[in-house]
Amino acid sequence: MATDVFDQRRKRLASFAAVDAVEARLVTDLVDCTYLSGFDSSNASMVVGESSVLVTDGRYLQAATEQCPGLQVVENRDATAGAVRAAAAAGVQRLGFEPGDVSLTQWRRLSALALDLGVELVETVDRISEFRMVKDPAEVAAIKYACQISQRALVRLLAEVEPGVTELAIAARLHWLMCDEGAQKPAFDSIVASGPNSAQPHHAPNDRPIEAGDLLKIDFGALYNGYHADMTRTFVIGQSHAWQVEIHEIVELAAAAGRAALVPGVEFAAVDRAARQVVEDAGFGQYFGHGLGHGVGLQIHEAPMFSATSTGTLAENMTVTIEPGIYLPGRGGVRIEDCLVVTAQGAESLTTMNRGLVALT
Amino acid sequence: MATDVFDQRRKRLASFAAVDAVEARLVTDLVDCTYLSGFDSSNASMVVGESSVLVTDGRYLQAATEQCPGLQVVENRDATAGAVRAAAAAGVQRLGFEPGDVSLTQWRRLSALALDLGVELVETVDRISEFRMVKDPAEVAAIKYACQISQRALVRLLAEVEPGVTELAIAARLHWLMCDEGAQKPAFDSIVASGPNSAQPHHAPNDRPIEAGDLLKIDFGALYNGYHADMTRTFVIGQSHAWQVEIHEIVELAAAAGRAALVPGVEFAAVDRAARQVVEDAGFGQYFGHGLGHGVGLQIHEAPMFSATSTGTLAENMTVTIEPGIYLPGRGGVRIEDCLVVTAQGAESLTTMNRGLVALT
Repeated sequence: MATDVFDQRRKRLASFAAVDAVEARLVTDLVDCTYLSGFDSSNASMVVGESSVLVTDGRYLQAATEQCPGLQVVENRDATAGAVRAAAAAGVQRLGFEPGDVSLTQWRRLSALALDLGVELVETVDRISEFRMVKDPAEVAAIKYACQISQRALVRLLAEVEPGVTELAIAARLHWLMCDEGAQKPAFDSIVASGPNSAQPHHAPNDRPIEAGDLLKIDFGALYNGYHADMTRTFVIGQSHAWQVEIHEIVELAAAAGRAALVPGVEFAAVDRAARQVVEDAGFGQYFGHGLGHGVGLQIHEAPMFSATSTGTLAENMTVTIEPGIYLPGRGGVRIEDCLVVTAQGAESLTTMNRGLVALT
Repeated sequence: MATDVFDQRRKRLASFAAVDAVEARLVTDLVDCTYLSGFDSSNASMVVGESSVLVTDGRYLQAATEQCPGLQVVENRDATAGAVRAAAAAGVQRLGFEPGDVSLTQWRRLSALALDLGVELVETVDRISEFRMVKDPAEVAAIKYACQISQRALVRLLAEVEPGVTELAIAARLHWLMCDEGAQKPAFDSIVASGPNSAQPHHAPNDRPIEAGDLLKIDFGALYNGYHADMTRTFVIGQSHAWQVEIHEIVELAAAAGRAALVPGVEFAAVDRAARQVVEDAGFGQYFGHGLGHGVGLQIHEAPMFSATSTGTLAENMTVTIEPGIYLPGRGGVRIEDCLVVTAQGAESLTTMNRGLVALT
């Protein structure tokens, strides 16, 4: 991404300084630092204000300096303390911070340091998560491409799946296929769940070989340019049973209802309700025990969340998942998950593969 | 690992209840929960006391119940709040917690909840990190095997490396080779740094093709059964330059000094000093800007840390890295990293590959 994107994001955050009654803001969350600087590391903090500073340790110093031309880069192993020092050195007297992003121990340490330096630490609302919910065109393009990589990998995988292959072998092969299609790496540990294992929403693949008559649930995605894809399809191995067809059809309808509810201005909880109602009306409500979906971007799970208790409303250019499921303990489960971008006209699905119950082999 | 291992770990933690003046302990760190339960998820908290409870959400409920036979498993999307409720239900009046493992926001929420429930939240020292520093035989075996997978993958990789191949292609191939050798996945994003890029301690691989005369630094490791390997070797492509041989020799000597310092009872800072002295005496101290090493286990970086300011002493069965380096800006850098287990007789290196400057092609 063009480096001025990051400068614009910092300027936008800084523009809230007056509203939040601070002069600058301390950013301690690593993903937020990546969002605001374009630089990804395991140790960083930032000060964002009229001028901005990125603090990291010596391992990353040269790369950060090269990759963040508009940003002052300072070396300090204790990046957060270094950021408070940098703010003090810049004359900041009121430094905002987000209380969800510092531990109690860290907060005490920083409070003492700030007191020493004559800086007041001021709690602020979480503006960055709000910014990050709404993607800019380059972010949407990266997520879309990550979804395309994922789908190309899945198509290649399906041609190879046959009874006797284990869940672990399928996951490993999918992993390789995603990288071969251009992924940095998998966006998360793939869920490959067969037969009764598919009744566990978040099953970790094991050495169970898939068998004729199994449901095969694959929840996976590629990471591309720092952005995550997330999708799920459920297949049947060979001939399907009536109960498998039944729950798959209900989940398909629920997924369609969830996707249709993705309209700017709609409440997050109403999106969850739209899909859940379909499952409940079919009599399977008790077997759909998780939220309907979540935001996706620099993290695999980020704001917004779609559940009965979520608060907030949809806006254009949010990228989210819709993933209803029905899980019958001991028998098997179905989930269908798509990754979508909210537009003025509704939602565009970035994952487009057939959502019907496809029989493999 | 046998499930009674986890029961023993919980009993050990519970045995400190009297010393810490609590009846049970709230565990909110996900890796600590894995350590104490054997169950790995993205959402869990525990109460560990006379009886113990694991709280997780519906996605993981069945798997957690099956995999943790000695443990009560409770469903709650807000796992930490659920754990406080479970403690209250069990009659716990003083519930210990680690202030480094809860955010300021979380702490306030939990404090209010605890007050409502008549539970007192009591800050305690970080016992679990202390436990985790010293590995049991099964943990050492897992790390050793992860190191063996890593080395087998590297040997296969080296046979394929030739000028013109990019850093990214090498990283992707290494990734695949590790999985092919039995890794769950890479333990972290591999560092493949060639030519001038090798001067950056933590360079992210890019599309630079390797060339004759380059240093090629590869820092990587496999994940096996939840345990991490971590190793680095630096190679030269074709004919080496005198400066490359010089800094590689110094780093080899520093690494040997660091490994030799790994004796039970030695201070962590003294380990760093032992290796750093070699680099400083050779006149390159300013080009070794990071700590000497770190603990490795369920996390790639965990206690102890070896730096000038570290406090604490070595004990038998700690698993650690020793990784000195010299990085000459704009020219190139060398790091040699081994993963070792501390024994009564000194340290056994779990990574055993040739540490000399090997020329490739």
